[in-house]
Amino acid sequence: MTTAAPMAISPEAYAPYQHDVEQALRSALDEFREPTWLYDPVHYLFDGGGKRVRPVLTLLACEAVGGDRAAALPAAIAVELLHNFTLVHDDIMDSSEKRRGRDTVHVKWDTNVAILSGDVMMGMALRLLMRSAQHAPRPLDVIDAFSTGLIEVCDGQALDLAFMERRDVTPEEYFAMIERKTARLLEMSVAIGANVGGATNGRVESLRTFARDIGIAFQLQDDVLDIIGSEQFGKMPGGDILEGKRTWLMLECTRRVQERTDASEQHRQLLDAFYAGATLTKTDVPVVLAMLHEYNVITDATALVERYTNDAFAHLHALPSTPARDLLEGLGRQLMERRS
Amino acid sequence: MTTAAPMAISPEAYAPYQHDVEQALRSALDEFREPTWLYDPVHYLFDGGGKRVRPVLTLLACEAVGGDRAAALPAAIAVELLHNFTLVHDDIMDSSEKRRGRDTVHVKWDTNVAILSGDVMMGMALRLLMRSAQHAPRPLDVIDAFSTGLIEVCDGQALDLAFMERRDVTPEEYFAMIERKTARLLEMSVAIGANVGGATNGRVESLRTFARDIGIAFQLQDDVLDIIGSEQFGKMPGGDILEGKRTWLMLECTRRVQERTDASEQHRQLLDAFYAGATLTKTDVPVVLAMLHEYNVITDATALVERYTNDAFAHLHALPSTPARDLLEGLGRQLMERRS
Repeated sequence: MTTAAPMAISPEAYAPYQHDVEQALRSALDEFREPTWLYDPVHYLFDGGGKRVRPVLTLLACEAVGGDRAAALPAAIAVELLHNFTLVHDDIMDSSEKRRGRDTVHVKWDTNVAILSGDVMMGMALRLLMRSAQHAPRPLDVIDAFSTGLIEVCDGQALDLAFMERRDVTPEEYFAMIERKTARLLEMSVAIGANVGGATNGRVESLRTFARDIGIAFQLQDDVLDIIGSEQFGKMPGGDILEGKRTWLMLECTRRVQERTDASEQHRQLLDAFYAGATLTKTDVPVVLAMLHEYNVITDATALVERYTNDAFAHLHALPSTPARDLLEGLGRQLMERRS
Repeated sequence: MTTAAPMAISPEAYAPYQHDVEQALRSALDEFREPTWLYDPVHYLFDGGGKRVRPVLTLLACEAVGGDRAAALPAAIAVELLHNFTLVHDDIMDSSEKRRGRDTVHVKWDTNVAILSGDVMMGMALRLLMRSAQHAPRPLDVIDAFSTGLIEVCDGQALDLAFMERRDVTPEEYFAMIERKTARLLEMSVAIGANVGGATNGRVESLRTFARDIGIAFQLQDDVLDIIGSEQFGKMPGGDILEGKRTWLMLECTRRVQERTDASEQHRQLLDAFYAGATLTKTDVPVVLAMLHEYNVITDATALVERYTNDAFAHLHALPSTPARDLLEGLGRQLMERRS
């Protein structure tokens, strides 16, 4: 498969979609004010902005199959609510203190508020989802995509957390994890939009595969940027390594070190320290990076990113050429071309 | 309104319903095994048993409007999953260590596991709900009842937690809280069953009001039993008072004490200590109980329980007389006649 020549899509082309999303989001949130104990954190969360990639995907998928994006707008907000619900609960579980440069909900309020505000966002999402589902030829397919997305995002987060207690995670298990944790929500975003737009099952499937491949490529690239992007952009390098995160880079490197009888003792010790958790320090990061280069892991990860990206566009091209399809492709490219 | 003469319904009459529920629950849970990190706690939770009041309500409501209860069975399991999701998250928020005599999930595992296992139960519930919704004449009404139930249960829990930081909660606010926190799930249980059974809106509404009134009566009685039931049954009396829980009893008593210019200084001080939180001790419980009696609060609460119960049955009797309606009435009575 080959990549189509990159198109020059101006960021302004997305402005009408983002505008629709922001406006619909405001009006949806306006229905939920009291009890303030519960809803203030939800308003705070969305006041913090965000790229709204997922709801824009929903609108574009609806248009790409010939639907009216106005019908998919409530569902697009539902998708953004579900995404933010996962962020609020994940931030508790990961003890993250900052999100988009601001205090996380459980830090600004407390854990109880963050649990319950997250919970209610799922109910809000479902209510909005129904407003779009009623326009769909098969309303329950819309709900089905949502419930499957919700279940599998939880599965993915559980796998990710469980990986931290193991040192025998395989690169294949890593793919199974990010497919659920990262890719499934993107997949759900387009599946819901396409279903509301009245797509055939075949087109829903093409859009799903596009979004899944983009999601996997995105996460792999995120892992690469965490260690090499920082070299170029002056960010704190190798945060994932210091946290002991089981990324494809480290898992594949481990496999290659184990397979080689002449692997250096230094490399074996570095990996032991990595899996022991929180024992590597900043000075170890360049040494780990050198090891990743020596075992060609960075090169191979970059090749994988490109392969998944090309596959994604090939699946997208199963759909007829429309402005919405071009915008979907452009969005995929934007996600892939970012360098920080 | 008058209460119909109590019927003699043998507990065995519910056995086929409970059997259906247990069997469907096992087979539904069997679909969810991995990752074990996520699903072991869900299996543990349901292995602990429970009265399954809500799913039985769903099945009976379906039959009471002429539906086939087999169609409502997946939805009944969805309702039980939603109920248990609220228990797992509430137990974290309330720092409860025991539930049905066993360690709570966040104690047996940890808070992260309890958050995420609760979350996934909502996705599981939604997936099951759809299997019943497809048999309903208006599938989205089934989903609507579910999403509204979910939102309002969260609202109720938020109000309950927010009350603990206030001393100006009114008895009316208490009703608004328990209507959401306790009654709404019962209401949802019958609404979903009735919708799957193809009920008219009028019948759905009658069943909803029945369940709401039963729910309110149940919670009020629960509050009364916490302080007087314990006198008869040797349980630790007045747990709610020691925890500073804003029950109708304490809120109404506060109002009456404040309205009376000749209220004793002792009573005013008792109430101050109650609202200050965690400052009353076991020896204060009989003094508070004496105060509640002096202000006729216990008598009036008992009268309210009876009024709500009678209203509940009157609404139920808007439905044609059927064996399922008798069983619904019997279930309402069982809930009301328990004494501990």
